[in-house]
Amino acid sequence: MTGSPTFKLELGHMALLGLSFIGNQRGVAGGQTFKASNRLAGEPTEPEFCSATLSELDRACDLAMSAFKVFRKLPGSDRAEFLLEIVKRMEFAREEIVERYILETALPDARANNEFNRTIGQIKLFAQVAEEGSWVDARIETALPDRLPLPKPDMRSMWIPIGPIAVFGASNFPLAYSVMGGDSASALASGCPIVVKAHPAHPGVSELVANCVIEAAEATGMPEGVFSMLFDSGFEIGQALVKHPKIKGVGFTGSQRGGLALWKLAMAREEPIPVYAEMGSVNPTIILPGKLADAESMAKTMHASLTMGMGQFCTKPGLIFAVGESIAFTKHLGDLFESTGFGTMLTDGIAQAYNQGVKSRCNAKKAEITAGGTSNSATLFACDAATFAANPSLGEEVFGPSAIVVRCATLDEAASLIEELAGQLTGSIHGTPDDLTNAGAIFDALEQRVGRLLINQVPTGLEVCTSTVHGGPFPATTEPRSTSVGTMAINRWARPICYQNVPASLLPPSLIES
Amino acid sequence: MTGSPTFKLELGHMALLGLSFIGNQRGVAGGQTFKASNRLAGEPTEPEFCSATLSELDRACDLAMSAFKVFRKLPGSDRAEFLLEIVKRMEFAREEIVERYILETALPDARANNEFNRTIGQIKLFAQVAEEGSWVDARIETALPDRLPLPKPDMRSMWIPIGPIAVFGASNFPLAYSVMGGDSASALASGCPIVVKAHPAHPGVSELVANCVIEAAEATGMPEGVFSMLFDSGFEIGQALVKHPKIKGVGFTGSQRGGLALWKLAMAREEPIPVYAEMGSVNPTIILPGKLADAESMAKTMHASLTMGMGQFCTKPGLIFAVGESIAFTKHLGDLFESTGFGTMLTDGIAQAYNQGVKSRCNAKKAEITAGGTSNSATLFACDAATFAANPSLGEEVFGPSAIVVRCATLDEAASLIEELAGQLTGSIHGTPDDLTNAGAIFDALEQRVGRLLINQVPTGLEVCTSTVHGGPFPATTEPRSTSVGTMAINRWARPICYQNVPASLLPPSLIES
Repeated sequence: MTGSPTFKLELGHMALLGLSFIGNQRGVAGGQTFKASNRLAGEPTEPEFCSATLSELDRACDLAMSAFKVFRKLPGSDRAEFLLEIVKRMEFAREEIVERYILETALPDARANNEFNRTIGQIKLFAQVAEEGSWVDARIETALPDRLPLPKPDMRSMWIPIGPIAVFGASNFPLAYSVMGGDSASALASGCPIVVKAHPAHPGVSELVANCVIEAAEATGMPEGVFSMLFDSGFEIGQALVKHPKIKGVGFTGSQRGGLALWKLAMAREEPIPVYAEMGSVNPTIILPGKLADAESMAKTMHASLTMGMGQFCTKPGLIFAVGESIAFTKHLGDLFESTGFGTMLTDGIAQAYNQGVKSRCNAKKAEITAGGTSNSATLFACDAATFAANPSLGEEVFGPSAIVVRCATLDEAASLIEELAGQLTGSIHGTPDDLTNAGAIFDALEQRVGRLLINQVPTGLEVCTSTVHGGPFPATTEPRSTSVGTMAINRWARPICYQNVPASLLPPSLIES
Repeated sequence: MTGSPTFKLELGHMALLGLSFIGNQRGVAGGQTFKASNRLAGEPTEPEFCSATLSELDRACDLAMSAFKVFRKLPGSDRAEFLLEIVKRMEFAREEIVERYILETALPDARANNEFNRTIGQIKLFAQVAEEGSWVDARIETALPDRLPLPKPDMRSMWIPIGPIAVFGASNFPLAYSVMGGDSASALASGCPIVVKAHPAHPGVSELVANCVIEAAEATGMPEGVFSMLFDSGFEIGQALVKHPKIKGVGFTGSQRGGLALWKLAMAREEPIPVYAEMGSVNPTIILPGKLADAESMAKTMHASLTMGMGQFCTKPGLIFAVGESIAFTKHLGDLFESTGFGTMLTDGIAQAYNQGVKSRCNAKKAEITAGGTSNSATLFACDAATFAANPSLGEEVFGPSAIVVRCATLDEAASLIEELAGQLTGSIHGTPDDLTNAGAIFDALEQRVGRLLINQVPTGLEVCTSTVHGGPFPATTEPRSTSVGTMAINRWARPICYQNVPASLLPPSLIES
């Protein structure tokens, strides 16, 4: 980076005010307040954050709709400039953001910086997409006035942004799926203003990033309302946001309960709107005999993916179908689980849900407990195929460092279990070249129920690129025809429109022949 | 066409059996029956059609899912061959189909043949799309094993079909939006089998076309279940179809009431599925002062569009904002309406709904009756802008040969009325070049609420091409991010999937570098 942007606040970013961002103004103090947790110390930390009021929400949505009318018509290069200005300011504030990130999550410095890098990488990627412009899929068919029996009119189409978008910050990615995460970057790139509902688990990080966005918006002359951010520790503001008539789409990453609740609210509106809820999954992984034979190495690979970041990833491969002789593999994996330290989870709620999920599965006594099984322990379960088939709850996600190994005698047995699975973000097959020559049925079965299909790689550590699909059939997401990550995501905030016989003076620039 | 295909039925197509098509078998007789109407004679006509049973429906869906596993993996050229074989058989049966079409609709021969031509044109277009193959948006990013800090995996993505689709025949297009209409052609082109619910207003046309499809499927070796068609005069079969777990998407063109009912059923499923319901709209048309001045010509243009096919088009421009001096225009249009003969409508239900809609509007005494106003008459209403603003029901669709002229004193007044309109399939502006220099606000307002925006053309008579968008914001459709007409429609039946590190032996052919 060259030079330091000039910040409005002389005190720098660390002067957290704990107030929402309503367009270019800050919300008012008063009403309900909450504090973030210093996760390692296990105690609340300053400052107090004030929940937004419904009238602040209303004003944020009004401003967003006003901004939309200007913002949607800006050249892509202007939106790119805005996005790159956000990156510049985030880079300048990196240390402060990372410090607060670690305080609010107990995640290590390396993870914080990696996620920071991924986040600014995503923003830069969407700046490129906005500037380059081909995402609008411009189609130009000029008139054929002499065609018989009827002349062909001049027909042109492109994708245009749909309006103000509500983006919900996710608990497990305070940067990459939060205030300026993927949904925010893609929505802004498309020409949609955003109203962010900050996740209450990391309000400080949210405020620091929001400062960067607002300063960048002002510095690049964006219309007021292009960005707002609302604090709330409960559900009221989020629900009101989804129901607000000026909101035209929703991005959410989180639990199935939360995602479905918002989706139902959106479907019950007078004007239903798209909800892109990414709700996680168990990410089935099939390990074929040749790879099971290499038990220690395979166990290490799976263990690393399962326990990285305390297993708090929606792509964690929590369901393992081991085809063939799996005793050694399960033993090695269990040993690794036993030796896994149990760190601090992202929130008390997530920790409670994890312990409850493990406890329920232990108490149900359907699967064997191979490792852990006590409170606050990385826990590995195992069972045979018949048990798994008879107990659908064994296929449910336990968010955290836990997995279940399902022993399958044959490929057919594994394939028939996969056929019963609901939609998943990812599915993986590990096999030697020999193994894979017989894996057609498993591959086919996975292909019909996942958003991303991997061979001999683990699904955690998602590559953000042009061909990324981070999505999948219901209930992994509420909208399988989209992705939340990668350049394709921009089209989730847009719709096609056709211009018939429209003169150049009224056509959008993308539809005028150069 | 060269040569005549060999037909299984020696008697030819006219031997209507009145039985559903369950894969390659016919349904059983018995149970509830119904007859089509000879529309001009106003009396029932032979044969009896037997409603499908729930077990037939179940078998059709099971067969469709079995077929899907094969059909989805066929090369696009095979699906194109199937589609072209359907065209060949339809061409061979054209006379019989057109004859029955006229009997069941009372529409004139020219309309029947035009729609026939459009329908086979659409099928051919999707055959091209399937064969050409770029609709899958193949993206190939090869691995960068030496990238730092982490290697980049091989990532490839494309769109794949989602599964068996339920297609509902529409009452007002017995060919183009029915058994082998746009939704059927695009679904089959994408690799999705279809289960058609035939519209009970034209069961004979439906059976004739279904014969062509099944014969073509057999002749080209398609898997059984790629096509089924169910008869039912009521709602039971249609509702059960949308709720069936093996159905993965729905295409519908019809009333708002019908479309929303199916959409709600689909959203309440354990696995919600996309419903593409195209539910019509009032298609606002704004006539600017320069064009109003040419009152007689403008009135002729509007009258032709409003009364063509007895106004039974979802793109009929039923709401006219006349900006400026509109007395002469309204007078001319009223005179043309008064002289409009009232033909037979498509069904008794449509005729009753039309007369009821006109009567309600007359009785409400909010708008003036400029022409017609009695039962079975083409009816023109008029009112001023304030009356329209105060009475939202004046903006509702009356399906049939009726329209309302809203007198607007200024462009601003028209723009503010447009800002209050819900989503529309189309919006049109008629203006001289001078008029259009001031039409920016109206253009912007329309752009945000229509699927197709026209200048100086009428929205009826839709061009089917690469840039066609026949869709629009809710409630014109339940899915504004799609179109039911034009090549883009194929993607409504598909979703993106990413293949990570998948060897060529398992990759779909579209993702292998040539």
